[in-house]
Amino acid sequence: MMKTAFIGLGVMGFPMAAHLRQAGHEVCVYNRTSARADEWVTRHGGRRADTPAEAAHGADAVFTCVGADADLQQVVLGKGGALAAMRPGAVLVDHTTVSAKIARRLAEEAASKGLLAVDAPVSGGQAGAESGQLAIMCGGSAEAFSAAEPAMQAYAKRIVHVGEAGSGQLAKMVNQIAIAGLVQALSEAVHFAKRAGLDVATVIDAISGGAAQSWQMNNRALTMADGEFDFGFAVKWMRKDLGLTLEEAKSNGARLPVTALVDQFYADVVAMGGERQDTSSLIRRLEK
Amino acid sequence: MMKTAFIGLGVMGFPMAAHLRQAGHEVCVYNRTSARADEWVTRHGGRRADTPAEAAHGADAVFTCVGADADLQQVVLGKGGALAAMRPGAVLVDHTTVSAKIARRLAEEAASKGLLAVDAPVSGGQAGAESGQLAIMCGGSAEAFSAAEPAMQAYAKRIVHVGEAGSGQLAKMVNQIAIAGLVQALSEAVHFAKRAGLDVATVIDAISGGAAQSWQMNNRALTMADGEFDFGFAVKWMRKDLGLTLEEAKSNGARLPVTALVDQFYADVVAMGGERQDTSSLIRRLEK
Amino acid sequence: MMKTAFIGLGVMGFPMAAHLRQAGHEVCVYNRTSARADEWVTRHGGRRADTPAEAAHGADAVFTCVGADADLQQVVLGKGGALAAMRPGAVLVDHTTVSAKIARRLAEEAASKGLLAVDAPVSGGQAGAESGQLAIMCGGSAEAFSAAEPAMQAYAKRIVHVGEAGSGQLAKMVNQIAIAGLVQALSEAVHFAKRAGLDVATVIDAISGGAAQSWQMNNRALTMADGEFDFGFAVKWMRKDLGLTLEEAKSNGARLPVTALVDQFYADVVAMGGERQDTSSLIRRLEK
Amino acid sequence: MMKTAFIGLGVMGFPMAAHLRQAGHEVCVYNRTSARADEWVTRHGGRRADTPAEAAHGADAVFTCVGADADLQQVVLGKGGALAAMRPGAVLVDHTTVSAKIARRLAEEAASKGLLAVDAPVSGGQAGAESGQLAIMCGGSAEAFSAAEPAMQAYAKRIVHVGEAGSGQLAKMVNQIAIAGLVQALSEAVHFAKRAGLDVATVIDAISGGAAQSWQMNNRALTMADGEFDFGFAVKWMRKDLGLTLEEAKSNGARLPVTALVDQFYADVVAMGGERQDTSSLIRRLEK
Repeated sequence: MMKTAFIGLGVMGFPMAAHLRQAGHEVCVYNRTSARADEWVTRHGGRRADTPAEAAHGADAVFTCVGADADLQQVVLGKGGALAAMRPGAVLVDHTTVSAKIARRLAEEAASKGLLAVDAPVSGGQAGAESGQLAIMCGGSAEAFSAAEPAMQAYAKRIVHVGEAGSGQLAKMVNQIAIAGLVQALSEAVHFAKRAGLDVATVIDAISGGAAQSWQMNNRALTMADGEFDFGFAVKWMRKDLGLTLEEAKSNGARLPVTALVDQFYADVVAMGGERQDTSSLIRRLEK
Repeated sequence: MMKTAFIGLGVMGFPMAAHLRQAGHEVCVYNRTSARADEWVTRHGGRRADTPAEAAHGADAVFTCVGADADLQQVVLGKGGALAAMRPGAVLVDHTTVSAKIARRLAEEAASKGLLAVDAPVSGGQAGAESGQLAIMCGGSAEAFSAAEPAMQAYAKRIVHVGEAGSGQLAKMVNQIAIAGLVQALSEAVHFAKRAGLDVATVIDAISGGAAQSWQMNNRALTMADGEFDFGFAVKWMRKDLGLTLEEAKSNGARLPVTALVDQFYADVVAMGGERQDTSSLIRRLEK
Repeated sequence: MMKTAFIGLGVMGFPMAAHLRQAGHEVCVYNRTSARADEWVTRHGGRRADTPAEAAHGADAVFTCVGADADLQQVVLGKGGALAAMRPGAVLVDHTTVSAKIARRLAEEAASKGLLAVDAPVSGGQAGAESGQLAIMCGGSAEAFSAAEPAMQAYAKRIVHVGEAGSGQLAKMVNQIAIAGLVQALSEAVHFAKRAGLDVATVIDAISGGAAQSWQMNNRALTMADGEFDFGFAVKWMRKDLGLTLEEAKSNGARLPVTALVDQFYADVVAMGGERQDTSSLIRRLEK
Repeated sequence: MMKTAFIGLGVMGFPMAAHLRQAGHEVCVYNRTSARADEWVTRHGGRRADTPAEAAHGADAVFTCVGADADLQQVVLGKGGALAAMRPGAVLVDHTTVSAKIARRLAEEAASKGLLAVDAPVSGGQAGAESGQLAIMCGGSAEAFSAAEPAMQAYAKRIVHVGEAGSGQLAKMVNQIAIAGLVQALSEAVHFAKRAGLDVATVIDAISGGAAQSWQMNNRALTMADGEFDFGFAVKWMRKDLGLTLEEAKSNGARLPVTALVDQFYADVVAMGGERQDTSSLIRRLEK
């Protein structure tokens, strides 16, 4: 069993930290809004710290799951941040979806202090975090990955070591690129089916065994047809992730025409008030 | 066992007719280039006719699998066409991917002569036709579908009655819409992964269990990364199908922005000489 | 002065035929709805015919300005059509925007009968037709162009002989391609300016002297900002023209990604009820 | 005559500062690479400073024309930066194309020190800077604009006060949005014309008097057709500006689908080695 710290108890971090605890690890939590940390301790035991540094002190592994680059920089490198308080040989595991640039920077900062670091963004959403069935894409040295992997088992169904520092974030971007165009394609397909007067369930039944099949088709086509979007992964977060992705593409020279276009279509959804709806709400643009 | 005619022995029709024969049906074939019909008879027995009408004479079911609207009109309604020769109560089953408009017209013409008609485009490609594992999307009356369905079992893994006449074609369009944007999204994802210096197989392994999963990801991501496209469903046919789809969308008012854009991207692939390559060759635009 | 026939008295043809008359030409008109032809004769003199053939009989030049390919084929080649009635050496001038294919076909049919033909689509809209200030793009032989040009001066501010038969239509397509993406760009610019809280008139004043300048910017930016679209060239006709253009691009191998995308955006405008509004109504998609 | 400082002697700043001097103003220059400043002094007289602060000391107006946000922040607010050295009531005029955010921040910093500030991005490119014929879009208070305007006359053909601080930058973004889609539309038009076998000069002659007209059509269509791109405004800078624009759109909620798409198309041009070519090189994507 490991001594761990968990920083960031949002809709993802709260249940993830709980799974760590249930797996028998010692967990000290930190959250910007302390009431949420208190609630976590009340429910799951362990203890809470007043600063990331206090949580990280003496831990074998420090997990972060916050909002974006700036938040991550704050809790890791800022005043009262975790990094300065970590013991030599400990591992920093960041589950936030952030830029590959900051992931590489944290890995360098960690290395300069004799620490290990893994960038480990997840997919599976709130439901996956709660059921402990996340997919985790990891970047970092083999040593860092080995140090982090056993504890992550507490909330993962799949953990893959993709490559060096930053690779976890880059893999997450690949995931979001694949989803963006796919969801738009499925939106157009369902929209066309409705306009053509077809029964959507029957059509999906007819085509979902072949080359058009996707997780989104299996799980979202019918809810899209019915206009149900109050679940899943929010448009707001998708836009954040696509923003990171398009920025990274500027650096590596990748061309992402449909991803960039769909990002603007998601802006249409935001303008329609859909910021907190599932990414499948992309169909709303067409159904007005 | 049924008495059947099969008109059109291209890469799809040739093996489909063979499966009919192997299932014990009587088969009379017709092909524009008669040498191909001779070859079929040499291999599979049965007999060949000199005109669609001759093939259709006395048949319980007449199958067509030709090139496009004009060809279909020719073999069914033209001089020496099948329809005029069919016996009352027989069923016309068209496996060509054509417009919903001509499918509806054939159904009307058939009805006016006391015949049944099913529009029954397939998916699964040449491989599916050869292995007898096609998915078939059917439009027509319940009676027509019931008359056609038993024989189609010879080469299908899935047969769905989608709705009235034309619905098979419309469902095929839904299928192609869903594929077009999805393949572009996957192309961008694989392209980004390569530009980012990731190992594509590892990334796909990491993400293919989640919300980005698709048949295309499972079956094409690695060949796309390796630049292999000499298999599958040709760009040339995809463009034909997308053309039918965009035309239909003008009638029913559906908006297909990414489908229309990807259709133009496929034109880029054609300009690069990729007309006969698999639809996954869409990535070639990005990899120059 | 010439003896002319004018077939098709829509919003364009009605005033164009009037200009011919005012320039001193003899004009016999034909219109599918004969009341409209009667009205024309009442206002402008001349006479009306009961069929295109009757109007064309003995004319030096026959002008057509109808709806689309099928209409043109009807009035020229159909029963009672103009071509068969024309005298040797006469010229057929088609002002309809149609496919280059039918323009070439009419030229061939004309040639086979010892007649001349010019495809001569116009730009300038209803306002240009009324003021006699149209721009005319002509395709056909030098001889045909020379025969047609003097009469067209009655309603043109600019007449250019672009090339052989069909070239007038192709030039019109080039015109519409250039407009489609430009109007979308201007829509995004005006939309952004409003969202950014800028005074649109001031911004346009600041930028319209430079590289962003366009006729559309000079004439439509402020009306777009004010949501005024009840004038100009209707979305319905733009979609017709873009359809012809995208079809032609399939033949000649041109890739038109933004044109295809904007065509779908115009479909959004149609879905919003904007079919009869000016093409600048493209901004409505963004302003909801 | 004013006492001025000019910071940043790139391809724009070098001739702009020279125009100031020729108009009779006192000019002290600063450039990161001092050899360039020495060259300027050798050619135009005046003097050079070792730091932005030294140049700004005692000046009535301080002009900046550097690379991007970070550079601007450095020369204005960084160590040895201009702002701290400026005398009360002096005006800071920034000609760099940067984010509206930093323009607003500089205006605030200036105000807090009793200084005036104008964000004043230009259009007209290197040619306009050399001939003193730039268009300048200004943001800032009326007082700041009045203080800056007389000196700017030295190199402007048009100066417009668009609005409060940041408005100059926002107007420049509007300009770039209008250009991006327009150039793509023109690229498609010229590409189609060539594929259709038309003479591009003749077609442009036929259509440039109407609704498709633009500065780009008048000045770039023929060079695009001839594949000449070694002049004008570089793709590299266009991508920088579009990046700023898309970022700003995230804040103000504007949707820019074609702008985002064309930005990716420009990335195609960069991948083809066109980073330093004129923005009209967008056509190269289609002409391969």
